[in-house]
Amino acid sequence: MTSQPGRHMTAEIAEQPVLFDNLVRRAPEIAAVAEQIKRRAPRFVLLAARGSSDHAALYAKYLIEVLLELPAGLVSASTTTLYGAQPDLTDVLLITVSQSGGSPDLVEVTESARRRGALTVAVTNTDDSPLNQVAELSVDVGAGKELAVAATKTYSTTLLALYLLVDAIRGGKAEAALDIGALAKSALDGSEGAVAEAVQRYRFVERILATGRGYSYASAAEAALKLAETSYLAARAYSGADLLHGPVAAVDGETAVLAVTSAGKGGDAMREVLEVVRARGADVCAVGSASADVAAALRIGVPMCPEELSPVLEILPLQRLALGLALARGGDPDSPRGLLKVTKTR
Amino acid sequence: MTSQPGRHMTAEIAEQPVLFDNLVRRAPEIAAVAEQIKRRAPRFVLLAARGSSDHAALYAKYLIEVLLELPAGLVSASTTTLYGAQPDLTDVLLITVSQSGGSPDLVEVTESARRRGALTVAVTNTDDSPLNQVAELSVDVGAGKELAVAATKTYSTTLLALYLLVDAIRGGKAEAALDIGALAKSALDGSEGAVAEAVQRYRFVERILATGRGYSYASAAEAALKLAETSYLAARAYSGADLLHGPVAAVDGETAVLAVTSAGKGGDAMREVLEVVRARGADVCAVGSASADVAAALRIGVPMCPEELSPVLEILPLQRLALGLALARGGDPDSPRGLLKVTKTR
Repeated sequence: MTSQPGRHMTAEIAEQPVLFDNLVRRAPEIAAVAEQIKRRAPRFVLLAARGSSDHAALYAKYLIEVLLELPAGLVSASTTTLYGAQPDLTDVLLITVSQSGGSPDLVEVTESARRRGALTVAVTNTDDSPLNQVAELSVDVGAGKELAVAATKTYSTTLLALYLLVDAIRGGKAEAALDIGALAKSALDGSEGAVAEAVQRYRFVERILATGRGYSYASAAEAALKLAETSYLAARAYSGADLLHGPVAAVDGETAVLAVTSAGKGGDAMREVLEVVRARGADVCAVGSASADVAAALRIGVPMCPEELSPVLEILPLQRLALGLALARGGDPDSPRGLLKVTKTR
Repeated sequence: MTSQPGRHMTAEIAEQPVLFDNLVRRAPEIAAVAEQIKRRAPRFVLLAARGSSDHAALYAKYLIEVLLELPAGLVSASTTTLYGAQPDLTDVLLITVSQSGGSPDLVEVTESARRRGALTVAVTNTDDSPLNQVAELSVDVGAGKELAVAATKTYSTTLLALYLLVDAIRGGKAEAALDIGALAKSALDGSEGAVAEAVQRYRFVERILATGRGYSYASAAEAALKLAETSYLAARAYSGADLLHGPVAAVDGETAVLAVTSAGKGGDAMREVLEVVRARGADVCAVGSASADVAAALRIGVPMCPEELSPVLEILPLQRLALGLALARGGDPDSPRGLLKVTKTR
């Protein structure tokens, strides 16, 4: 019996608004974890993750630097797992992000960091995972079982959980996120036509890249990964600033550029980038709450929200675009060739 | 008068062995900077850079985590320049890497970090640059004027300068680097035939990616950028571990994989990665001192050296490959379309 290609990914994308509502309702539970973090007053934050979770970690890095004003960095797991480095991590908060909580390298990084004095927090979708067992504190993103190999609902709920955690650390009460479920629903419903148009336009694309700035750089990175995983496109992402430092030379009239442009400072800074790529003939598809304000061949709008939450909404039509392109190209995004749900690298 | 395409890049690649010798001779000058850093005993290191320099910073991140055992992170410049974050940076060392020292965003990041308590060090090839003026300490990579837009000698000398700095901080006397100039010369001379073969083989390649692990991840990232800048290939780089977490789905029999495999823990960990991509039919070109030990369609060897220095050698044939491919494809790698030497983003 062959099942409908992409049925899991389709269903899991659609679940997200309800999952956001559920997660916001659990804000007090996340605030209790935040309370314990505040008590330890960390001075530096490290984030460890792989794959889609690494993009959620990138988003959290911006939240931490901007909203908490703490210096933060992404962990290179191999300095622990391959080279056995043993830095002193007193005053350090390590946040390890992994939907499965089962990657041996992340478990090793977390265990080793805890031994060296870091306060360790696991953000997972599997609350009895090996990672939760080695971390001192845990946040459950509560997305329920994810059957498609390509992460969708676990990615977006992880973003929202990280937002709620950071917001609580700074003393917030999740005010900005209260209606995120409803906004997500209208982001999905309202973008259906534009996404279908983009699927048509990019059915045969060979050169495609994604770009965004600030908080939205994470959305561009995740969009490129979804396209690579599900449609086998050699898509890549650049921060808008980095794109202009070299890689823009490879942009031409055969290149599609997915440009994440939401209202706020990151979206504003994208205008300069889009002028350059448009002048080189690129086919720009603008995605986000400010997509109407930029020159583009296609636009996929999402509702307005505070800039620091916009990655939670922007990714929704981009997931649908990856799903639609994979199906149009004859693939099954639920089980891409050569991928397993938990990747065991060291 | 049209000049010979690629003549600057050709000459600048060839200069590197001599520049390495000169730089190693200046090790005591770099050790004096290291002495001042040691006196301040930083507990956390941040690195700020863009473009090729960002790959040098990535290399330095590994050096700092493994050899100095200090936690380190790469700066997202936009948290300062767009969002105005003002974290307390007491006990933080900020190393800003920029060949020109003229990127306004990096100058702003450095100035702002110094105001907030960080010890700031500029690593540049322009010792009177705006960046040197705002940073407390400076290291001059001494590569001389670079005329080609694509960075080659400024990249490799920056790697070596960062190695010498870190080595001096841990109390070393540059012992491992004493013969790096001679090794670089034999890396260039000895790889000419294999590079020419790779240029032939990849003249018409459309899908190409670069991968490496540990210290060599930086080499893969820089190789992909050189190919994008000079040959307009939509090349991208993945750490070997991240490649297996999703993007490997896009690897097929039409994909060329430049795999950086030097002797050491990073190169050893690449075997698993190469087995997976070879099983998917990819055309593997192994580059590095352990390239003879892996299954590959093509191999470009470089001399053995301590693993932490291998990125200084590995990049040399990869620069020649980018140059050769650009010329074979009819481009002028000295002045790629749409690029300027100093990119002024905020």
